[in-house]
Amino acid sequence: MGKVYLIGAGPGDPQLMTLKGARALGRADVVLVDALVNRGCLAHARPDARIVEVGKRAGAGTSQAFIEKVMVQTARNGGTVARLKGGDPFIFGRGGEELRALLDAGIEVEVVPGITAGIGVPAALGIPLTHRDLAHGVSFVTGHGADVDWQALVRSRTTLVIYMGLRNLQAIVSELAAAGMDPRTPACVVENGTLGNQRQVITRLGALSGAGFRGPVLIVIGAVVGLANAMISRKAKAA
Amino acid sequence: MGKVYLIGAGPGDPQLMTLKGARALGRADVVLVDALVNRGCLAHARPDARIVEVGKRAGAGTSQAFIEKVMVQTARNGGTVARLKGGDPFIFGRGGEELRALLDAGIEVEVVPGITAGIGVPAALGIPLTHRDLAHGVSFVTGHGADVDWQALVRSRTTLVIYMGLRNLQAIVSELAAAGMDPRTPACVVENGTLGNQRQVITRLGALSGAGFRGPVLIVIGAVVGLANAMISRKAKAA
Repeated sequence: MGKVYLIGAGPGDPQLMTLKGARALGRADVVLVDALVNRGCLAHARPDARIVEVGKRAGAGTSQAFIEKVMVQTARNGGTVARLKGGDPFIFGRGGEELRALLDAGIEVEVVPGITAGIGVPAALGIPLTHRDLAHGVSFVTGHGADVDWQALVRSRTTLVIYMGLRNLQAIVSELAAAGMDPRTPACVVENGTLGNQRQVITRLGALSGAGFRGPVLIVIGAVVGLANAMISRKAKAA
Repeated sequence: MGKVYLIGAGPGDPQLMTLKGARALGRADVVLVDALVNRGCLAHARPDARIVEVGKRAGAGTSQAFIEKVMVQTARNGGTVARLKGGDPFIFGRGGEELRALLDAGIEVEVVPGITAGIGVPAALGIPLTHRDLAHGVSFVTGHGADVDWQALVRSRTTLVIYMGLRNLQAIVSELAAAGMDPRTPACVVENGTLGNQRQVITRLGALSGAGFRGPVLIVIGAVVGLANAMISRKAKAA
């Protein structure tokens, strides 16, 4: 029997993959890679590995059933699979569904965590997400659904990190303001974070806008964004 | 002028450091390392690097002023400093204070994010923190202060990840129950997460206890903990 590694590729810069992730990738016979994963990460794969692009953007693309079938069949034939996902597999990565399918099929799985965009991208801007006196912690949510209780999050006084929030940004800003968040609260939108073509707007809640961004972007809202510093060095490779 | 790398060493397993962190460590003339960092990470340092142990546990240990002075002086003398912190520098790591001191002194700084325990430890247990239908996101907070608004966090329906919560665990459980969290909510306590001597208790909120743990521990509370799976493979090195 083979094995599947569920690997987080990190936020963009291929150097932000873990040592363990790179090593697991180098053992794989088959690599299933998502659209958002930087292709520089594949430098760690074996030259003879079969690379399968299974990306989906905005819902289109390879079906989940196909992805799971390839992983299960490869492992049952004794092969090693690297399932490479952007960021971390368990932070808005649907890694849980794939893990469940593999365990149900009796396949050995090892989860290799990755730097999620919500941590790696603020680091590149020098934003200390949980800075004492400015935040009581940090919350990671998505902006694409209607489920999030923005009022509770404002009350929690945690720094807010919002994934996939570009399309609903104006509604989110309105909800946060209605929940009593000060419109002067520092906030930023970051596109291609940690990469050579990173672009960001650092502003305040009341002026927050997605204009000029095509996404995917990361949005960070909270007093800690006021500590962002342009002097931070960043030696990332281009996408 | 030299440079300082603020590096996250990851949650324990030295293989969970990033490629970039390992590379930066290999460039350093001086390495300042916290008590909670696994010594296996130092394998990436140069043999002739000066290793300075600056750990503090429970407040005792090297002063922050000394740490900042060594970093600034080394960089001013043209040296390269690796400041190695457990987990991620900006998630309850006081990286913000050190970054500020360095920028104020005109020192070049690069922040290399790390896998925070709150992400790496659940991964080792197969807990998908943001699993759809079970969580609206994830919140990282500390358990050692009186600041956290537990009621707001319960209302947010995010998975709760609590750092440094062992000492106050009974009070936290009471607060969460008083805020309306179901006592049957799955919950776990994990010690030495991702290491060979990892130990965990997976239970429910109403039965959550720190008995038998000496810490530091990570506490995870939410329906997603019910997906934890003993079949998860974990090939970590011993501490």
